[in-house]
Amino acid sequence: MKRLTPEEKNGLYKAISNRRDIRTFRPDPIPPEKIAMILAAAHHAPSVGFMQPWNFILVEDEPTKQALADCADKERRALAIHYEGTGREASFLALKVQGIMEAPLTICVTCDPTRGGDHVLGRNSIPETDIMSVSCAIQNMWLAAYAEDLAMGWVSFYKKADVRRILNIPPHIDPVALLSIGYTDHYPDRPLLEIHQWAKREDLQQLIYRGRWGNSASDKQKGLPDEEAAPRK
Amino acid sequence: MKRLTPEEKNGLYKAISNRRDIRTFRPDPIPPEKIAMILAAAHHAPSVGFMQPWNFILVEDEPTKQALADCADKERRALAIHYEGTGREASFLALKVQGIMEAPLTICVTCDPTRGGDHVLGRNSIPETDIMSVSCAIQNMWLAAYAEDLAMGWVSFYKKADVRRILNIPPHIDPVALLSIGYTDHYPDRPLLEIHQWAKREDLQQLIYRGRWGNSASDKQKGLPDEEAAPRK
Repeated sequence: MKRLTPEEKNGLYKAISNRRDIRTFRPDPIPPEKIAMILAAAHHAPSVGFMQPWNFILVEDEPTKQALADCADKERRALAIHYEGTGREASFLALKVQGIMEAPLTICVTCDPTRGGDHVLGRNSIPETDIMSVSCAIQNMWLAAYAEDLAMGWVSFYKKADVRRILNIPPHIDPVALLSIGYTDHYPDRPLLEIHQWAKREDLQQLIYRGRWGNSASDKQKGLPDEEAAPRK
Repeated sequence: MKRLTPEEKNGLYKAISNRRDIRTFRPDPIPPEKIAMILAAAHHAPSVGFMQPWNFILVEDEPTKQALADCADKERRALAIHYEGTGREASFLALKVQGIMEAPLTICVTCDPTRGGDHVLGRNSIPETDIMSVSCAIQNMWLAAYAEDLAMGWVSFYKKADVRRILNIPPHIDPVALLSIGYTDHYPDRPLLEIHQWAKREDLQQLIYRGRWGNSASDKQKGLPDEEAAPRK
C-alpha cells in the first residue's frame, strides 16, 4: 500500500466530488493516450472472482453514433408516455438525456456473464456480481475521464436488443452502458437533475444505520460530517 | 470542472491501480472521520435518475459480525461442493474468502429498488441500473479507503435471506455487498487471486473492439499502452 500525499488524496476526493454526468460536448477529438488511460482505469477495477467480464466497443463513426442516438431517442419518447398525466411530462421532455452525436467517442461497455467459466469464485451466491464488477469499471472510467479533463455521460436509454443489433453483439453479452466522452464547456458544479429540480440529493445521515436496518446512526456517530462537508467540494 | 494538478491526478491513478481486495486485517479501531470520508465518497457516486438507492449498515459488534461470518462460511463450504472433482477443490479451500471477524467494521451496502418512485429516469429501459449505481458507490468507497490508508474486502459469499434476517433488512431491500474495512499489514501489489494462481489478468488489448463487437482495435489504436504500462503502478 502506497500512502498518498495530502495533495494526491485531495485529487481523488476532488474527482469523486466534482464528477458529473454530462450530455453536452465539444467536437474536438480526444488524444488516444487519454482514451488509453480511461480504458486502463476500467481494467483495474475489482471484479468478483477476478472474472473481468468487461469489453469495450469504441464507436467514433457518424453512422453508428446516429444509429445509437436514434435508439436512445426512441426510448426517450417511449418513456415520455409513462410520464403523461403525472405532471412531469413537460419537464421530462425538456431534459437532455444523451449527447451521443455531439461527443466524438461513445464507448459501449459490455458484460460477459460466461467469462471465468461455470463457477466464478464469489458469484455462486450473487450472480449479479458480474454486472456489479462492470459498474466498478465504469466508475473508474468516469474518475479517470475527470482526471484527463474530459466529460463523460452515461446513456441508459435504449433497448439492449437494438444496441446488440447495431454493434453486432452476441445474444449472451449484455451491453450495460453507452458512455459518451469528450471535452465540454459546461461542467456544472451540481448534478444536472438537481439543477433542473428533477431530484435532490438525499441526506446521507438518513441513509446510515448502525448494527441493524432502521437503527439511526445520527445520534451515535458524531464524527460523521454531513454530505456537504466532505469530501471537499 | 476543476483541473487536477499532476500530483492530484497521480493520486487518483495510484488509488485505482493499487487498490486490492483484502481479507486480513489488524484489530485497530478506525477513526470515525475516516469512516465518514468513505461514506461521503459513496454518497457522491453517480446514480441513474439521481435515485441514490443505497443504504449503509455499520456492523461493529462481535455477535453480529460472528453471525455474518458464519453465513459466509456456510456459503464457502457449499461452493466447495461445486469444485469437487474439478481439480480446484483443494486450492479453493486454501483461499481465505473473508475477514469479517478480523476487521473492526463491516458495512452492509444495500439497494432499494423502489427509491425514486415508479419511473426513475433512465431506469425504464435497464432496471438493473439501481444495482449498478450502488456498485459505483462501492468503488468510490474502495478508493476512499485506499486514500485513508485502510484496506477493504468485498464479501459476496452469503445468501441474501440470511443477511436480511441477521440485519433485520426488509424483504424488498437487496443486501448487495458486505464490505470489511480495517488497517492491514498485508497489502499485496497484485490481486490475491493472481498471487494464488487462481486467475490471471486478461490482456486489455483483447477486450477492446472498434466500431463493432469482435473488430480488434489493436492494429489501429497504437496509442493504447498495454495494461501493465498505465495507469502507473
